[in-house]
Amino acid sequence: MGRIICAGLGPGDPDLMSLRANRAICGARHVAYFRKAGRAGQARRIVNGMLQEGCTEYAMEYPVTTELAFDSPDYVAALSRFYDEWAARLAVLAQSQEVVVLCEGDPFFYGSFMHLYVRLKDRIPIEVIPGITGMSGCWTATGQPITWGDDILTVLAGTLPEDDLTRQMAAADALVVMKTGRNLPKIRRALTAVGRLDAAWLIERGTMPDQRLARLADLPEGDCPYFAIVLVHGQGRRPEMPL
Amino acid sequence: MGRIICAGLGPGDPDLMSLRANRAICGARHVAYFRKAGRAGQARRIVNGMLQEGCTEYAMEYPVTTELAFDSPDYVAALSRFYDEWAARLAVLAQSQEVVVLCEGDPFFYGSFMHLYVRLKDRIPIEVIPGITGMSGCWTATGQPITWGDDILTVLAGTLPEDDLTRQMAAADALVVMKTGRNLPKIRRALTAVGRLDAAWLIERGTMPDQRLARLADLPEGDCPYFAIVLVHGQGRRPEMPL
Repeated sequence: MGRIICAGLGPGDPDLMSLRANRAICGARHVAYFRKAGRAGQARRIVNGMLQEGCTEYAMEYPVTTELAFDSPDYVAALSRFYDEWAARLAVLAQSQEVVVLCEGDPFFYGSFMHLYVRLKDRIPIEVIPGITGMSGCWTATGQPITWGDDILTVLAGTLPEDDLTRQMAAADALVVMKTGRNLPKIRRALTAVGRLDAAWLIERGTMPDQRLARLADLPEGDCPYFAIVLVHGQGRRPEMPL
Repeated sequence: MGRIICAGLGPGDPDLMSLRANRAICGARHVAYFRKAGRAGQARRIVNGMLQEGCTEYAMEYPVTTELAFDSPDYVAALSRFYDEWAARLAVLAQSQEVVVLCEGDPFFYGSFMHLYVRLKDRIPIEVIPGITGMSGCWTATGQPITWGDDILTVLAGTLPEDDLTRQMAAADALVVMKTGRNLPKIRRALTAVGRLDAAWLIERGTMPDQRLARLADLPEGDCPYFAIVLVHGQGRRPEMPL
């Protein structure tokens, strides 16, 4: 009878969600979303004013992990328990109800929902509604195409070792670097090593009202916003332009 | 007074376009779109039933180029003239009118609109509405996340030399290969060389009613659909699952 719909919310501007995601959210009687403990949550904020009266909300609050390194066994175990518990709760609810899980960006592109999805997909019917990625919101905000012709685009996590970043940055035409924050000095060094720092942009909260755009080279070293994306645009093959 | 709005249509299912793109298209009095000569055109097909009565349509038909190699000077010159001419026509129209240009997928991600955009952006106000990419429609159709944790995603054009494909495929976790068609035998050889053929999917018309999904290794060698995308899913870091 019941099922789960994971609605991709897009890059942040509510107007950029798909018609299908919008319809699912506006009609939902049960809505679940991830957030940090004590925060309103970005996913929930995007749907402000869209939920119908009487809709039940399930805030899935990440375990507090500030004391733990992201790759420590304790952190991994805490996250694993967290996903197990919520998968179990949603499985019970989705026996009889339709539950809409909100997911920023595109659910199958580095989304947290995937951890629930792999736990539930063989037990419960699940529909995933794709969304506009955060990176697409960011490159659209720069007013420049990210890729042309045969450009190679590589998407990297700033958490990768510096050598990997440098090697990948040298081999690609267009670049997206996510998970920046305290990795930004390392990302900056890698871009400098391959001669691409001057072509790099940093975009925070792309498509949102408080969007911030800057050339990375113009920002002070200490400025390390966590939810920012670094972009280098491709300059590939294109038919010649007059003048 | 006038301006151009480029509306990203998403991967093909009209229900996956954004609220903003939908509103622009439904309210448009002038709509332009690319298509091959003699074809209805995929962009136009996506908005079937959405255009209001009296809306004027501008079919921008690519010059016929079957006789020319894509990198020949004649082909490049013909395309260049084509973009110049349409840029000039739209510039005149957009002096006084709002013109909505339809664009499959995401306009700034390998989209044809970019060639008009660079010609017009300093002359006419242009708003670009991002869209869900075709590749996102395809990976969502496979029912598997494309990237986890710190996975490196690389997007390649099948038109690249085989050595480049092989080197890039060896260095990335998750892969997207566009522009397949007659390049598919080469793509297949490159995937085989790096031991990833068995993990590769071929998706045609992702999210559309006649969507086709297959493991690349299961398809006969001669099967080379042009508008197909090849995907290899990343298998990156994730919290352990029970059982």
